[in-house]
Amino acid sequence: MTEYKIALVGFGGVNRALAQLIAERNARWQQELGFSLKIVGVTDLFLGSAIDRDGLDAATLVALPASKGALAQLAQGSAEAFNEAVIKQSGADIIAEATFTNPKDGEPAATFCRWALEAGKHVVTTNKGPVALHAQSLKALAKAKGVSFEYEGAVMSGTPVLRMARQTLPGAGLVGFEGILNGTSNYVLTRMEEGLGFAEAVAKAQELGYAEADPSADVEGYDVRLKVVILANELLGACLQVSDVACSGISAITCDDIQQALASGQRWKLIGAASRNQDGSVQASVQARPLPGNHPLAGISGATNAVAFDTKLLGAVTVSGPGAGRIETAFALLSDIVAIHATKHSA
Amino acid sequence: MTEYKIALVGFGGVNRALAQLIAERNARWQQELGFSLKIVGVTDLFLGSAIDRDGLDAATLVALPASKGALAQLAQGSAEAFNEAVIKQSGADIIAEATFTNPKDGEPAATFCRWALEAGKHVVTTNKGPVALHAQSLKALAKAKGVSFEYEGAVMSGTPVLRMARQTLPGAGLVGFEGILNGTSNYVLTRMEEGLGFAEAVAKAQELGYAEADPSADVEGYDVRLKVVILANELLGACLQVSDVACSGISAITCDDIQQALASGQRWKLIGAASRNQDGSVQASVQARPLPGNHPLAGISGATNAVAFDTKLLGAVTVSGPGAGRIETAFALLSDIVAIHATKHSA
Repeated sequence: MTEYKIALVGFGGVNRALAQLIAERNARWQQELGFSLKIVGVTDLFLGSAIDRDGLDAATLVALPASKGALAQLAQGSAEAFNEAVIKQSGADIIAEATFTNPKDGEPAATFCRWALEAGKHVVTTNKGPVALHAQSLKALAKAKGVSFEYEGAVMSGTPVLRMARQTLPGAGLVGFEGILNGTSNYVLTRMEEGLGFAEAVAKAQELGYAEADPSADVEGYDVRLKVVILANELLGACLQVSDVACSGISAITCDDIQQALASGQRWKLIGAASRNQDGSVQASVQARPLPGNHPLAGISGATNAVAFDTKLLGAVTVSGPGAGRIETAFALLSDIVAIHATKHSA
Repeated sequence: MTEYKIALVGFGGVNRALAQLIAERNARWQQELGFSLKIVGVTDLFLGSAIDRDGLDAATLVALPASKGALAQLAQGSAEAFNEAVIKQSGADIIAEATFTNPKDGEPAATFCRWALEAGKHVVTTNKGPVALHAQSLKALAKAKGVSFEYEGAVMSGTPVLRMARQTLPGAGLVGFEGILNGTSNYVLTRMEEGLGFAEAVAKAQELGYAEADPSADVEGYDVRLKVVILANELLGACLQVSDVACSGISAITCDDIQQALASGQRWKLIGAASRNQDGSVQASVQARPLPGNHPLAGISGATNAVAFDTKLLGAVTVSGPGAGRIETAFALLSDIVAIHATKHSA
């Protein structure tokens, strides 16, 4: 039976949910997945850090309050975040990176990933920043070190998109995709179809915890743009930078626009899309537009996300599911570890 | 560069489409997929058979008329279908089985698969019969012989369902599924929503080639039932036989039923479903019912198929795409070969 030693970098919602899954399911995973996980380190800029090569108790970690320096409450803990030590010296095989997304330069997450890969550790991350901005160099580094760099959760949380395309669509002739990649904006559009104004619908999303106090990353398309870059570079072999993708959001859409579209069977959606041109180049965009009722994404309502892959041999193949959520995103990390296990196991 | 020698058993729409893909794309596959295919044998009860260990020309095969004994036109051909010789003695590494579906005992396809596996050849098939009725024994035989038995195309043609669940959902806690698994019946229901009567809608489906002269396998749910057995046994570890699955179709649904549902935002769909009970047993059914508008399958219109996986960690994850078509189903065979190549390659 395999046991992977894992260090959690960032201990907000996602890695705390992973710890919760470990506390609840480790025994089952030994049966079901052929491995179990042992948490040997945790670090978080706000909560501090802890290292124990013999294993930190997952349930104890989950129960820690979200208060400054809380990890100092552990015998093996400190109020200081010793990021580099946790990544390099905890004896971890795998680093689970789930700090905040920095859309400017991907830091400090990109550095955390780099430290881990340089030290010969697998990295699993749900962080769009390092993937959208530095995937190429991080993948090259992982390859050189003979380890894996996996990031299913960077797009649509645990709903399989990257791995689905990679594992099930080779040979299908993937030429592009369209996606509803932000649950908050799709929720807002859905509520506007029910008669709410834009501001009211955003307030509703904030009330439910879907939208941040400053909702601009969601409603102006910036979040979607990062995901479009990730998908286009990964699935279409593009080398897009964030600034290459024209981006507009949903804040200028009026109730009239929405109701006019509905009257003719159409639904406004914020679509992140990319397609390969005849000459091999890839064009990408983020833009709201009304979809005809028979479009594969027209029926995706509320906070659900979806990607419709455009393929030569199958036409449209669409996957939909949750686009956010603590447990849903923690599952993405687990699915990355399942993939690492499969690679090692068959090697 | 790897070259797999393949023999085509049954040369109707699907294997002819595979030959067409080989004729058009073999060179590209060497680059893209790391292998190419060489057709070393073809056999078909109506068209006859041909064997050439040096390779039959794919384009020539595609151009053959669909007339009795047509394979005799080839220098290496005969008007007789030497099935056993083609399967066992053509030197094939892989047998692509795509004869007709026999829902009673899966024959003669099951025997073709057995011959191939016993001779140590991989089998890829799109045939629901052998998979729904004999998957357990055929999988055991494949395992004993150290070869693969793959059948992505038995459900939803080339749209990834079996492989998607196997490759991307381990650990997600799959507890059941609901599916729209027959394009003809879904097309009929969609047309009935537009005002057509059942008989008119069936006639329309026949006109378009979606429905057979005798449409009962499609509209009475028998086709869906075979697929439910395949999915439940494969994904939920059930041991269902066809007779274990209660089955009803759409022929008793009236225009009134459809319009009443629409008026309250619901849509009638023929749903094949299975779920695991607390005690580990699995219950499955095929039944038409009205779905609320926010159900993940409510928006699946026309001949499109879809499966919504019910998982503990992600809730519903849904994949939709084509459920039939020559090229679409031939892609399923290709995707099976891609999977075989991945297994061999990493072994």
